[in-house]
Amino acid sequence: MQFAKGHGTQNDFVVLPDVDGALELTPALVRVLCDRRAGIGADGVLRVVPTAKVEQVAHLAGEADWFMDYRNADGSVAEMCGNGVRVYARWLQEAGLAGDGPLSLATRDGLKAVTLAGDGDITVDMGAPHLPGTDRLVQAGGRSWPGMEVWLGNPHVVVQVGDPAEAGPLSVPPVVDLDTNFEFVAVRGPERLAMRVHERGAGETRSCGTGACAAAVAVAVRAGQQSGSWEVEVPGGCLQVTWTGATVLLTGPAVIVAHGNIDARWLAAADE
Amino acid sequence: MQFAKGHGTQNDFVVLPDVDGALELTPALVRVLCDRRAGIGADGVLRVVPTAKVEQVAHLAGEADWFMDYRNADGSVAEMCGNGVRVYARWLQEAGLAGDGPLSLATRDGLKAVTLAGDGDITVDMGAPHLPGTDRLVQAGGRSWPGMEVWLGNPHVVVQVGDPAEAGPLSVPPVVDLDTNFEFVAVRGPERLAMRVHERGAGETRSCGTGACAAAVAVAVRAGQQSGSWEVEVPGGCLQVTWTGATVLLTGPAVIVAHGNIDARWLAAADE
Repeated sequence: MQFAKGHGTQNDFVVLPDVDGALELTPALVRVLCDRRAGIGADGVLRVVPTAKVEQVAHLAGEADWFMDYRNADGSVAEMCGNGVRVYARWLQEAGLAGDGPLSLATRDGLKAVTLAGDGDITVDMGAPHLPGTDRLVQAGGRSWPGMEVWLGNPHVVVQVGDPAEAGPLSVPPVVDLDTNFEFVAVRGPERLAMRVHERGAGETRSCGTGACAAAVAVAVRAGQQSGSWEVEVPGGCLQVTWTGATVLLTGPAVIVAHGNIDARWLAAADE
Repeated sequence: MQFAKGHGTQNDFVVLPDVDGALELTPALVRVLCDRRAGIGADGVLRVVPTAKVEQVAHLAGEADWFMDYRNADGSVAEMCGNGVRVYARWLQEAGLAGDGPLSLATRDGLKAVTLAGDGDITVDMGAPHLPGTDRLVQAGGRSWPGMEVWLGNPHVVVQVGDPAEAGPLSVPPVVDLDTNFEFVAVRGPERLAMRVHERGAGETRSCGTGACAAAVAVAVRAGQQSGSWEVEVPGGCLQVTWTGATVLLTGPAVIVAHGNIDARWLAAADE
């Protein structure tokens, strides 16, 4: 079984090319591949499969050649991953399956417009944010903070702080009974933010693409803006977020670290 | 650059074949390769290089064809690694560079006798233990314990407990001013032990080969024995330790998970 390993702002993925649509990607196989000691190690798996080969999304085959079959490291299915979609697009580009320029990808969250710029950054249209308008009380770093709910395909609660370090260690979810992602964002300059994130089911991570978008939108709304452009520093690097007023564009790096083959004996033993 | 990833009881390694002895393995390169998010990810690097190609050990070339150039994930040099030497030998075997049966490997801790048994476990002669005879007071899990010093190429302090869980979270070194490895070992049966380990410079790990040997020797000495054979359960699997009275033999699994090539562009950018 062929694979590649790549990351976007240190959110890392095992890429599994499956151009025949023949790979049976079980939750158990995802877990052993993502195991950081006994397997390859990653935050998730990106199966690269033709849209036409997957019944669930085959109706999108006319608009997007490739379907991003994304799985979390625990084997669960996720609709979308803002860092993963860039790594997926980079893999297609390096494999010669996508040229520079615009690209439409099928995901479980529908079609995503991706723009590839040579060896540079990759931009993904993340869609329109949804703001329910309710505030949530978040407790972190020994303090209580008001948090703004923002939906971007998945749920977020954004807390604006003076410095992300104020949230303290994020080893446990800031609100235990709320199944969401939490961002702690600080304004560093007119168009510059710094953010830490606690992802549901994963804990504190080095980066979260949808989280960077949610954080920028929340800061804008709090300042009375309905659009804008920001650099968002995350522990794993830097992302650019542009809110056009309608849609949110996420731009960032995506790199392939290595290509290889999974050992067949290991795979047979691990997948038992 | 070619690589493989493998592990022994979940102590994992990036294997770098360097049959020409041409690879300049800098500490910075080791760190980026071992980075679990931005690189391949591992506890250390095993460079596979002919003994004759390395000035420092070239005098051993008549006795051992291959030198295990082992580096810790932080880029530092280590003399020996009980789990790493098995993964190294497995790689040689699968590459057709070593047959089944006895094999002599050069390490920074001298020659090591390795026995390969087909697709089964691998045995390494770890040498004779050294017992200084001094006890150390160890504080862990809210209690104080007497710890026995055992040397096996590297230093260990072994604490015998009713259950390894009693040591509590091993997020910090049990004795902050003592630069050693700490094992918490419980007797589970006549020839069965269970162990947790805090490795210096690494924190709690899933397995430690020399630590399993040190733990077995300490339990034996405490029981008035000078030899014996034990199964040692570690969080990452199970190791067999035999103390012949003279030398300590460590037996355990070693698997290669994947083979591949490091992306040249990533490598050029990461190694800057």
